[in-house]
Amino acid sequence: MAVGKSLPRKDSYDKVNGIAKYIDDYQFSGMVHAKIVRSPHARAKILSISKLSSWKDDWVLLTSDDIQGENIVHVILDDQPAIAEKIANYAGEAVAIVVASSENEANEALKSVKVDYEPLEPLLDARKALNHDTIKLFGDDNVFTNHRMINGDVDPIFERDDVVVVEGIYEAAAQEHAYLENQGCIVVPNEFDTYTAYGSIQCPYYVHTAVAKILGVDKSKFEVIQTVTGGAFGGKEDVPSLVVGLCAIAAQKVQKPVKLIYSREEDIVGTSKRHPGYMIYRTAASKDGTLLAVEADILYDSGAYSTLSPAVIWRGVVHVLGPYRCPNVLVEGFAVATNKVPNGAFRGFGSVQVLFACESQMDRLAAKLNMDPAELRRKNLLVEGDVTAFKQLLDDSVGGMETLVQTLKESDWSTKWKPAPDPAEVIQSISTNPIRKGIGIATIFYGVGLGGIGKALSRTGAYVQVHQDGSAVFAVGTVEMGQGMITVLSQILADELGISYDKIRMLIVRTTQTPDSGPTVASRATTFSGRAIIKACKPIKKSIIATAAKMLNKEIEELEKEEQFIRVISEPTVKISIDEVITQAFLDRKQLASFGWDVESPDTNWNEEEGHGNAYVTYAWATNVAEVEVDLETGEVTVQKIYAAHDVGKAINPQTVEGQIEGGTVQGLGYARYEQIVWNKDGNILSNNLGTYILPGTKDVPEIISIIVESNYAEGPYGAKGFAEQPLMGIAPAVTNAVYNAIGLSPDSIPIIPERIWELIKQYREDMEMEEKA
Amino acid sequence: MAVGKSLPRKDSYDKVNGIAKYIDDYQFSGMVHAKIVRSPHARAKILSISKLSSWKDDWVLLTSDDIQGENIVHVILDDQPAIAEKIANYAGEAVAIVVASSENEANEALKSVKVDYEPLEPLLDARKALNHDTIKLFGDDNVFTNHRMINGDVDPIFERDDVVVVEGIYEAAAQEHAYLENQGCIVVPNEFDTYTAYGSIQCPYYVHTAVAKILGVDKSKFEVIQTVTGGAFGGKEDVPSLVVGLCAIAAQKVQKPVKLIYSREEDIVGTSKRHPGYMIYRTAASKDGTLLAVEADILYDSGAYSTLSPAVIWRGVVHVLGPYRCPNVLVEGFAVATNKVPNGAFRGFGSVQVLFACESQMDRLAAKLNMDPAELRRKNLLVEGDVTAFKQLLDDSVGGMETLVQTLKESDWSTKWKPAPDPAEVIQSISTNPIRKGIGIATIFYGVGLGGIGKALSRTGAYVQVHQDGSAVFAVGTVEMGQGMITVLSQILADELGISYDKIRMLIVRTTQTPDSGPTVASRATTFSGRAIIKACKPIKKSIIATAAKMLNKEIEELEKEEQFIRVISEPTVKISIDEVITQAFLDRKQLASFGWDVESPDTNWNEEEGHGNAYVTYAWATNVAEVEVDLETGEVTVQKIYAAHDVGKAINPQTVEGQIEGGTVQGLGYARYEQIVWNKDGNILSNNLGTYILPGTKDVPEIISIIVESNYAEGPYGAKGFAEQPLMGIAPAVTNAVYNAIGLSPDSIPIIPERIWELIKQYREDMEMEEKA
Repeated sequence: MAVGKSLPRKDSYDKVNGIAKYIDDYQFSGMVHAKIVRSPHARAKILSISKLSSWKDDWVLLTSDDIQGENIVHVILDDQPAIAEKIANYAGEAVAIVVASSENEANEALKSVKVDYEPLEPLLDARKALNHDTIKLFGDDNVFTNHRMINGDVDPIFERDDVVVVEGIYEAAAQEHAYLENQGCIVVPNEFDTYTAYGSIQCPYYVHTAVAKILGVDKSKFEVIQTVTGGAFGGKEDVPSLVVGLCAIAAQKVQKPVKLIYSREEDIVGTSKRHPGYMIYRTAASKDGTLLAVEADILYDSGAYSTLSPAVIWRGVVHVLGPYRCPNVLVEGFAVATNKVPNGAFRGFGSVQVLFACESQMDRLAAKLNMDPAELRRKNLLVEGDVTAFKQLLDDSVGGMETLVQTLKESDWSTKWKPAPDPAEVIQSISTNPIRKGIGIATIFYGVGLGGIGKALSRTGAYVQVHQDGSAVFAVGTVEMGQGMITVLSQILADELGISYDKIRMLIVRTTQTPDSGPTVASRATTFSGRAIIKACKPIKKSIIATAAKMLNKEIEELEKEEQFIRVISEPTVKISIDEVITQAFLDRKQLASFGWDVESPDTNWNEEEGHGNAYVTYAWATNVAEVEVDLETGEVTVQKIYAAHDVGKAINPQTVEGQIEGGTVQGLGYARYEQIVWNKDGNILSNNLGTYILPGTKDVPEIISIIVESNYAEGPYGAKGFAEQPLMGIAPAVTNAVYNAIGLSPDSIPIIPERIWELIKQYREDMEMEEKA
Repeated sequence: MAVGKSLPRKDSYDKVNGIAKYIDDYQFSGMVHAKIVRSPHARAKILSISKLSSWKDDWVLLTSDDIQGENIVHVILDDQPAIAEKIANYAGEAVAIVVASSENEANEALKSVKVDYEPLEPLLDARKALNHDTIKLFGDDNVFTNHRMINGDVDPIFERDDVVVVEGIYEAAAQEHAYLENQGCIVVPNEFDTYTAYGSIQCPYYVHTAVAKILGVDKSKFEVIQTVTGGAFGGKEDVPSLVVGLCAIAAQKVQKPVKLIYSREEDIVGTSKRHPGYMIYRTAASKDGTLLAVEADILYDSGAYSTLSPAVIWRGVVHVLGPYRCPNVLVEGFAVATNKVPNGAFRGFGSVQVLFACESQMDRLAAKLNMDPAELRRKNLLVEGDVTAFKQLLDDSVGGMETLVQTLKESDWSTKWKPAPDPAEVIQSISTNPIRKGIGIATIFYGVGLGGIGKALSRTGAYVQVHQDGSAVFAVGTVEMGQGMITVLSQILADELGISYDKIRMLIVRTTQTPDSGPTVASRATTFSGRAIIKACKPIKKSIIATAAKMLNKEIEELEKEEQFIRVISEPTVKISIDEVITQAFLDRKQLASFGWDVESPDTNWNEEEGHGNAYVTYAWATNVAEVEVDLETGEVTVQKIYAAHDVGKAINPQTVEGQIEGGTVQGLGYARYEQIVWNKDGNILSNNLGTYILPGTKDVPEIISIIVESNYAEGPYGAKGFAEQPLMGIAPAVTNAVYNAIGLSPDSIPIIPERIWELIKQYREDMEMEEKA
């Protein structure tokens, strides 16, 4: 069996050794280079675009007038133009394209374009977007979408005097994807009036649909090919539709291959982030810690265009309570417009912000109840047979409790955890006892797949082709972007057919090789492409077993598959190698290639009006424990150890699972401790490079203890379910809860940079002074 | 309906306007160029290969020692090396490869290689290959393969005195494919240890299998992509396995993209031809013209290696009698080795030579019986319900008689045909009556597909993908090489799905897009890829009709397909466009992509021992009439008019059928009148360019009257069956029979260049003198 083994990744050698070809490594004969003229203003009328006298004749300047199809970057609401027409709505928005023979020339050309703007006052604070008297950027209320979750009745609970109530207002910063490879693509006009786009792309079918519209051609005349992609994390979900769209406008005009690679600064100012989130929570529990009611308002700053916000805010609403039972909930979530770069998909997709808030609430509640926060979680955690706050019965693969139990055990929580100190004592003894240790916990869950409102996109095709020499190729419509999908799917295919893992190759993703298989998002690739592969294998397995029966002169029922062999059940020594069987099946013209089709199931739904439904096909579960040290003099929080238990259904490749856990943990650590996009008052991003946007370095990585929980998801391939986003999701609350445990003050915003610790202390002092005065 | 209409070809605009990219138009970054060091000797020991002092350091010289896999060009018998090791077996054989940064440099490098040979006496005359005392090139008898056809008992027939017997010894020259685009390819070493070959390739799966062996890699690590191919005619069936093999050896060694393009001279000296054929016939008929017995020995000159000869000689044997009933046959065919370039596939594939001989025999027989040769054919022609000489019952789509009847009518044969003049009179009156007119006829048939001995290769896959905008792409494993397949298959797909022909695109053929679908040969593409497409459409049609039923709120049974619409049978005005239905089906996640698999059927077989069987799934049929003028002073034969009736089952695109008829007629005319590869006594080809190898020019093309007969092949897509090779096959005998009719002398070899007319006259005079002496 290949499944369950830590076989070497298919793509690592070439990636590590510089052999893998990223989009900027590609050269096409006659290729020219595009660069984007971007608005320096967060909001401005575009009065005119002209060429300076330094303009060279062989340069090409393109504006929205040159678009031959529609000037729309299709995602959901279709409100975003590829090139701004009369108005620029964020600093960094494309207003024109220049094309020249080299990248240097194109940069020169950029300087020879003059755009006259009339700057307008921008709307930059999402919290003001809903105000009546503010600037209107979308509709008459700046709301792209709102969603809600309703169950029971919260008001009577909060009025009861036998309940404990905690409140909180939380804020989470915009996070940059910071993939290693910037956005980039090449669009090639081909013979027979067709176009091919190559690029660092997470969702080739999004690009296929969106850019065919921009080009104004039938989808059959346009193809998208994903080149090796150096990280994405959601940042290459919807954005490449814009990047490739801009490049395609140029390619269509000049009828030459055009390359467009974003610089790091362009990538930061011109592409999506994780939505800054503003969350107001009120939580009520009985005195024994049983959750009774949660009321929450969440507000996500979408930036200038809606892109994926309607889906992001929905996922936020669904995950707002975390993985707990609660009979009464009233949640409303809004995604609103501001004059910032559009925010979009990011690993965790709208759930990370609310899970930070929700898990902070849990610790505040535990403190108020004088309970161990782990115990509070254990008490309320959803288990098999439970119904979620949004009224979904959980009847399969509910591994949350197992992740909690194992993490507590591994981390020796019961020994290490102590109630938080009195902050007054902590602050008083800063000079004598500046370093405080704490331990924090967070338990989370995450809906696998696109679920109730996104399921229309969740279809998957797989093509499997076995060669006469016993080697095989396969194609799926989901992409490898570093997450290990090629490896995992190859293992599944190996076991389905009984052939060697080494003989399997996944083909690059091209939109003509498999049909629209939806986006590679929502931790759906392993589950759904895995299932499609298994379906594709069906007729091939039939060919193989029938041929083996013929060769062994037995009935099919008398045979069984052993690794790389088929043997006679009653005489296990009588066997024949799969390779031999395949060669014979080929000669017999048996079908050895096939196509599999899978649709996300079991069915999901969401009652928009009533605010509940079967949101996702299943959920992944995780518990994190963080051990931290807080230096009260410097404000520095040092994370010393992270325990991370994840219910993945089945670890197809344990090492890859651990890789995901470790990578996600570090990305979560960045979110918890360092990372934030900072805008100036005019709406320009200040942290526009990796010198000013701070990422965790290798020395910041704590010891990470990965714990794999396998709850066996019956609907998944070999029991597996997606979980790849999840490793980052519990880190911020585990760390902030550990800080709370260390110093007795509960952080209400992330990242907890040193200044935030100082602010906490300052705020506490001010509160105390106020109290004393009162 | 698209089927049956002369819709514009999908590929013509870009081909005519120079937009289509042929292999030599491709550039890859870092690409280097290979050239082949070829043996100047027809047979020689290779003593040493060395570099001269002019050799430059950045050049690379490769010999058979550098091959990392096997030094075998896999076709059937695996007797051919990619690079000659110790001995060169034909003039033009590869003995080494040079690689340099440009084509010019590579040509320079060629001059700096010194090969020491020890020339050996070559075997050049195939007729001597079977002699006991001759040089042995293969086995102990130089026979690559022999096949036979046996039925009844010929000997008693020939002994009867109530039968008429005619004998003949015929010879057909080697014909050059003379495709517009020479052989060429590029092999690219990719990331992840894989290789991609691009090239002008007729049978990508042959190349895939053969070159994976040469590279020594799993087939999953190697991919073959067919670029736009400028003609093939069989010449790019097996040969690209060698061309790409040589290029791959270089690419694997230098780990850079390598281009290898043959010059015209290399292409002529280094690649296959139509086998020169030597045929001895004895035919017996009753006095009323009923064929009673045929005895034939056929000998095909295979050249140095067997390549496809085992298949070519078999097809020759099966077609040896032409399309006639005959109860007694004894046929033996041999493919033998000589020291010439290996001969291989060529449109007509082994049947053209024997059909020339067989149809000449028919006219000699008619003359001896004082019958109209058309009447002799009518009398013996196979019709539905008949059994062939090789014991196959013909029960479907037997349109030979219809082609004969229609051609006779169109050509006004009964008015124009007169018995041939007495040659003595013709010769005596050369000075007074040098120009003689004649009319000739030939009726032929041709087995569709790979048949009894080749069927293992005749499998076909098709992939169909419909996009949400109602456009579609499809992929098959058979290639477009000028024959019009893309157009015809697009029409079939359009009608299967009810979508517009304009919205359909065929994808380029890549060996990873569809599984091994056999070679694009044997007039099999329309029939079998067409069938596979129809199978692939099944689930898609189901999705479409189910969605339409939902949208129209009807049962599926209540609906029918109209062009680009689905309508309610009982209320024909209630309809919905297919495009709308497809968009809805997409949103409903219905399966809109699928894979179809087809295996050549009904089943065929061949009893090698007994020499008969159900050779082919079906047959195409044709009749040609040629009107000629023979100038006895110059020896010039001018073909004035050709009638060409072809039973194609169903003309999917009538204009494309006519294009095939016209193109094939001209190629047949070249075979009949001009084309021959000429070797010198040392085994070097003298006619090694298109100045000395004479092709028909535009002014040589006579008026061609195309007649399409549609017999509706029940097993074929929309009734169609393959026929694309056939248009050339009856031309040579129709022309030579017309010459016979003009001058009373029956040519026994082709091409009938002027010298051959002189020889006929000279031979007749000598025979007369001998007779007078006797």
